[in-house]
Amino acid sequence: MDGSQGKKLLIDYTKKARPILLKLIGQQIRENKSVGKVPQELLKSFKKLSSHGKGVRGALAVLGYKSGGGKQVEEMIKTSIFLELVHASLLVHDDIMDRDDLRRGEETVHKTFERYGKKIGVSIPPNHYGESLAICLGDYIFYLGNKVLLDSKLPKKNVLEAFKLYSKYLMRVGMGQTLDMTVSSIKNPTEEDLLKVLWLKSGEYTCLLPLSVGMALSGVSDPKIYKAMEDYARCFGWAFQIQDDILGIYSDEKTLGKVIGSDIKEGKVTLLVMHLRKNGTKAQKNLLNKYLGKKTTKKDLEVIRNLFKEAGSYDYVKDLGWKYVKEGKKYISKITKDNKLQDIYESLLYFVMERLN
Amino acid sequence: MDGSQGKKLLIDYTKKARPILLKLIGQQIRENKSVGKVPQELLKSFKKLSSHGKGVRGALAVLGYKSGGGKQVEEMIKTSIFLELVHASLLVHDDIMDRDDLRRGEETVHKTFERYGKKIGVSIPPNHYGESLAICLGDYIFYLGNKVLLDSKLPKKNVLEAFKLYSKYLMRVGMGQTLDMTVSSIKNPTEEDLLKVLWLKSGEYTCLLPLSVGMALSGVSDPKIYKAMEDYARCFGWAFQIQDDILGIYSDEKTLGKVIGSDIKEGKVTLLVMHLRKNGTKAQKNLLNKYLGKKTTKKDLEVIRNLFKEAGSYDYVKDLGWKYVKEGKKYISKITKDNKLQDIYESLLYFVMERLN
Repeated sequence: MDGSQGKKLLIDYTKKARPILLKLIGQQIRENKSVGKVPQELLKSFKKLSSHGKGVRGALAVLGYKSGGGKQVEEMIKTSIFLELVHASLLVHDDIMDRDDLRRGEETVHKTFERYGKKIGVSIPPNHYGESLAICLGDYIFYLGNKVLLDSKLPKKNVLEAFKLYSKYLMRVGMGQTLDMTVSSIKNPTEEDLLKVLWLKSGEYTCLLPLSVGMALSGVSDPKIYKAMEDYARCFGWAFQIQDDILGIYSDEKTLGKVIGSDIKEGKVTLLVMHLRKNGTKAQKNLLNKYLGKKTTKKDLEVIRNLFKEAGSYDYVKDLGWKYVKEGKKYISKITKDNKLQDIYESLLYFVMERLN
Repeated sequence: MDGSQGKKLLIDYTKKARPILLKLIGQQIRENKSVGKVPQELLKSFKKLSSHGKGVRGALAVLGYKSGGGKQVEEMIKTSIFLELVHASLLVHDDIMDRDDLRRGEETVHKTFERYGKKIGVSIPPNHYGESLAICLGDYIFYLGNKVLLDSKLPKKNVLEAFKLYSKYLMRVGMGQTLDMTVSSIKNPTEEDLLKVLWLKSGEYTCLLPLSVGMALSGVSDPKIYKAMEDYARCFGWAFQIQDDILGIYSDEKTLGKVIGSDIKEGKVTLLVMHLRKNGTKAQKNLLNKYLGKKTTKKDLEVIRNLFKEAGSYDYVKDLGWKYVKEGKKYISKITKDNKLQDIYESLLYFVMERLN
């Protein structure tokens, strides 16, 4: 087994869903013509952001729907784009908080409108103007997501159930983010808090939420199935986060579409940092502290990469990821009896660890 | 006629709705115990904010519901608090954008968590930490609002229709806010853009949205009634905004619960500013420009107050507000045939212009 079927799931999904997504945003741009130029420019910038992305959440929602025996697959794909919309709008808000300049290979929204503010000569600080507009855009897209879900032609009863689940998890991810902002910027966060953030932001949000929403949209409500999805999502989420942490340091900007070393700059206590702090030598810990919380040059990054390898943190974390891949497999047969779908679930776990962005 | 019945509507509503609102937020605080201390603190700060407020939007939603002949009034009150929640969360986001320190007589959320960040020694700039947490809180509450609406025991069909309307208007208010941020911080915004902002933020959001949502929850869909509500809301909204602009300069901090002169500091082109720029003498315009965009002392405020009075801007704007009160009355009989409710609609227009906060 490898990640190829998982990768194919995302590619096939994106091929179908992206045109629907971009068409919808195009409509929004036109509808906002009467509101003004700035709203239109803001939505154009969102359209750019939406032209990229792996489609993980939307694809998992469709997979969840199929696993529940749902047959209106085309309508489900159309509905699923609400998750892609809302995910992108969370990214817009996150990028403000992480002060990132690059997302999905494009300039982040708040940065674009910082420049825009300078151009039109706003009287407030341009970075504040850019951030404010990015907050508004995110808020707008949350409600566009609502609209897509409410316009779904899937059975109304299922839509309402899915909407409840979705709202519950979005509340949790909101609070997960506050925890993340906190534990990643204090000196000695507890391991418990760190692990909770990872679970809320990766396991629950990236995997359990879309699978559950898809399952609810298919009309299935058996709690045993939801429990199995939760177990699978826990493993998926850990592996996903581990690979995120690794790519954030060991990938390159062009492949990843994000700034490399951003975690270091923000002083984030990732799993790599956590391992080194526990197991590194005093010299290794001191060296890490020298870089954490500061902007890194290419040369600095090279030092940091070697540091994590020498301290055994890289291998430890990578092995942990593969451990979760192995564990995750155990729960698949409780989610669906369909062999083809089971293979996709399994391959997805591999894909998560094999992916390059 | 005067504003007393309108005022009573809000007081009666608040008396019933606030305990429900505060109980719900209390539940959220308890449920977030397992997530962490910061989420709990954040929600406690939101509970404080929710202990104040005039209840305009919730009360208008209940009024719209009654106008449509809705009979499940207690359940409607319970449902209506989603608007109060979402309004408060928009305020949390707006306060970041307006960089205000005070809201409803309490310290704003981002300011509270700037202090909190300092206390726990975050490695990022404390104001950035505070703003980030306030963004997350707002996002969280949007979804709590969804939950309240989805949990409503009013007929599901009506809930879905109301939800669609609500999402549509929230999208418009999001874009209205981007326009507001822009026109209020550029030198020469067009009057058209300024008026559009006022309509989106006051007429539509404060009045038409809640009335329409209430009407939809009662099951009425007659477009003629919605058109009459739109006309009424236009007048209500103008009067509301006019009084807001006036209070923002002529009230005092204790009564208003907001920083006085914040509009001047942010360089906002309010209706007062617009009138003076059009009709003031050169000396008056120069004097205004001296203050606009800067923090004002008490003495400065006194100068500005006199300036608007001497230029005739104060009287002009106040008269305009009363003109809208008069016009608004014309549409009431098309919204409801119930005489008692008609009186309340009329009194509300007076209340808007008479209110002190």
